[in-house]
Amino acid sequence: MMVAELICVGTEILLGNIVNTNAAYLAEQCASLGISCYYQTVVGDNRERLLEAISLAKSRADLLIFSGGLGPTEDDLTRETTAEAFNRPLLMDEHTKSRIEAYFKNRYKDQEIPENNWRQAMVPEGAVVLDNENGTAPGLIVEDDGKTAILLPGPPNELKPMFSEQVVPYLRKRQGHVIRSKTAKLCGIGESAAEEMIKDLIDAQENPTIATYAKTGEVHIRITAKAKEKHEADELIKPVMKELKNRFGSCIYTTKEDVTLEQSCVEILMENKLTISTMESCTGGMVAARLTNVPGVSQVFKAGYVTYSPDAKRKILGVKKSTLKKETAVSPRVAKEMVKGAVLLLKTDVALSVTGLAGPDGGSKDKPIGLVYIACRVKDKTRVMEYHFSGSRAKIREAAAAAALTFLRQCLWNDVKSSPQKNKS
Amino acid sequence: MMVAELICVGTEILLGNIVNTNAAYLAEQCASLGISCYYQTVVGDNRERLLEAISLAKSRADLLIFSGGLGPTEDDLTRETTAEAFNRPLLMDEHTKSRIEAYFKNRYKDQEIPENNWRQAMVPEGAVVLDNENGTAPGLIVEDDGKTAILLPGPPNELKPMFSEQVVPYLRKRQGHVIRSKTAKLCGIGESAAEEMIKDLIDAQENPTIATYAKTGEVHIRITAKAKEKHEADELIKPVMKELKNRFGSCIYTTKEDVTLEQSCVEILMENKLTISTMESCTGGMVAARLTNVPGVSQVFKAGYVTYSPDAKRKILGVKKSTLKKETAVSPRVAKEMVKGAVLLLKTDVALSVTGLAGPDGGSKDKPIGLVYIACRVKDKTRVMEYHFSGSRAKIREAAAAAALTFLRQCLWNDVKSSPQKNKS
Repeated sequence: MMVAELICVGTEILLGNIVNTNAAYLAEQCASLGISCYYQTVVGDNRERLLEAISLAKSRADLLIFSGGLGPTEDDLTRETTAEAFNRPLLMDEHTKSRIEAYFKNRYKDQEIPENNWRQAMVPEGAVVLDNENGTAPGLIVEDDGKTAILLPGPPNELKPMFSEQVVPYLRKRQGHVIRSKTAKLCGIGESAAEEMIKDLIDAQENPTIATYAKTGEVHIRITAKAKEKHEADELIKPVMKELKNRFGSCIYTTKEDVTLEQSCVEILMENKLTISTMESCTGGMVAARLTNVPGVSQVFKAGYVTYSPDAKRKILGVKKSTLKKETAVSPRVAKEMVKGAVLLLKTDVALSVTGLAGPDGGSKDKPIGLVYIACRVKDKTRVMEYHFSGSRAKIREAAAAAALTFLRQCLWNDVKSSPQKNKS
Repeated sequence: MMVAELICVGTEILLGNIVNTNAAYLAEQCASLGISCYYQTVVGDNRERLLEAISLAKSRADLLIFSGGLGPTEDDLTRETTAEAFNRPLLMDEHTKSRIEAYFKNRYKDQEIPENNWRQAMVPEGAVVLDNENGTAPGLIVEDDGKTAILLPGPPNELKPMFSEQVVPYLRKRQGHVIRSKTAKLCGIGESAAEEMIKDLIDAQENPTIATYAKTGEVHIRITAKAKEKHEADELIKPVMKELKNRFGSCIYTTKEDVTLEQSCVEILMENKLTISTMESCTGGMVAARLTNVPGVSQVFKAGYVTYSPDAKRKILGVKKSTLKKETAVSPRVAKEMVKGAVLLLKTDVALSVTGLAGPDGGSKDKPIGLVYIACRVKDKTRVMEYHFSGSRAKIREAAAAAALTFLRQCLWNDVKSSPQKNKS
């Protein structure tokens, strides 16, 4: 079993200037490749301390994965220091030099290339060079004495594609076996309930393994299998995924790695040629913002209203004054009247409304902070759900937006159902 | 100078299940207290490896700050392992026991307290106990042989208030001197331009120090001073802040730690009793969502429209068919007609519109992806700005939402100005 250690280099992480999302990404990738990781270290742009971290990591791991410190300035020490720790001189790599030249020419036309940038074309002797499609610093793989160092650039938009496209195949080959994983993404169920429902599978797991991950309003279940060949690993995953589908049914909104909940909603709408509109109060546009983050959404998304004040609910959506007075703005009836008003105005096939109390003020015994009503109208049928969320104003709003998308998907699932072929995905 | 090391404990971090935001928070806090931090370590819920991390950290730091591993289950080992490393037996703390009892009674009424939870009332002999207002696990401070361990619970909503309310005063007292810091938050200027404008100050810095932090669409400049007494440190900060205000003028939207850009906009609106509405295309509700995250915003925010399709722009906001045809939806004229339509409908004093191309498809040579127009109408005056953003669809949308709030603030600043007293803050 291969053991890895992550070393993230950068004073900006030590100062709390940035959140270390690279570590989470690399850790998740290692886990899904079946590589164990016992330590993560963050160290600043400092030669001695970086050397100490490398020597310690070499003593307890086979694979050292670095992020950051490959930039063009004097502060960026990862390349030089790793070369030193792995006893390799730095040599000019002509291929990288031309790539950097082309990169600059393409982006900055006639601007001169700063002298510093040539440092990025210096690579440890014998290193594997990983081309960077999104920046100048190449990634590097250095092997020495049974230990391997993988150096990756710090910016996530450079690190992630380099890792998934170049490092993953390299590691797969190195391991001598193949690790494959597939994720079932669930909505409308909590993490502990989901775990409870597959406790027997988790307890009995060996190969494939099963792990749950909690996200806002979602649970992801990842199945990971190890085998000699890709198709063998895939065959090991299949029956487990089938069993998950049996147990969770339509709670699974996708089994594709890069599909989001909002995207799965938009896909059902597109397949069924249905248009949608949103009316939001406490979420203030968050539901519309998530839906409109899906490329191509303009085919189905007509318009959204943020009717934050009772006045706006009345004037724009035609919610009745008497309803607002008798039941208050946070009530199932107002949620219903909001969708009705929007459908009259916009003639969309589907309408989704959210009204609730996000706090910090305005709660009462009857209507506590965190109370949210969501209504969804699909064609002529309107459903309303009541929710109780807790936490800060921001947390309640996020949870309400996730719940709205979950409810939308459930209503679409029940009322229009996507084609049988698509159900499988 | 005190040197700290962060040790974050949790297998869920090693698996990439969660992003380690605690480390960023604690690192930023240490930096603002003038405490140096050379390493951050993440280790799993494993006694031997945690002991190794503690022993290493003791060899190179004075202060060990732990997050996580204080939960009630057998997996949670930070308390026991630190007690072992600091040679202290664990004793039942009656005060914590009663607090946990009260906590459960308050939240779960008659439900029995799980046996496991009493483990959380066991504290290392002689430890300072930090009450947890938001959970059961107390924080702990253990001192031994010149080294100090501070143990904090993992959930950020428990860790953060405990740190700011209880640990910060403790550390301030320990240091024998006071560190104070103040942040100027800027919008409408890039990080390198901002740095360039204060290069002389940064180069000459000693006490106070000056550091810039880049955020989406914003730059934060933190001034940190060290002195024997609080007021002395504050006096050191004052002239530097005054100089920043001289140089950056209205680019500084606040000097208060907890005020956001959207909040500063809402405050100007409230002070001047102005109402606002938003009309968004490419940002799809993100501007409204940010504005409505400000508590009490209902006083000024009337409504928002997400007119994503050209059809919606026409039907809802009355944008002219001929304008859409001649100039396309992404044009200064459409941005202007959007605010005009909203003002006619809603009669708000201020209206803010965003229209642009977030991609990935739909760009052309004349109108490339990333082109965004933002219009802001304050009373009878409408201004339009053209922007060019780059990156993914999500990045372009985020940048456009930040730019819209920045532009809103600039227009308010120019056209209505807040009262002189408020300008100072």
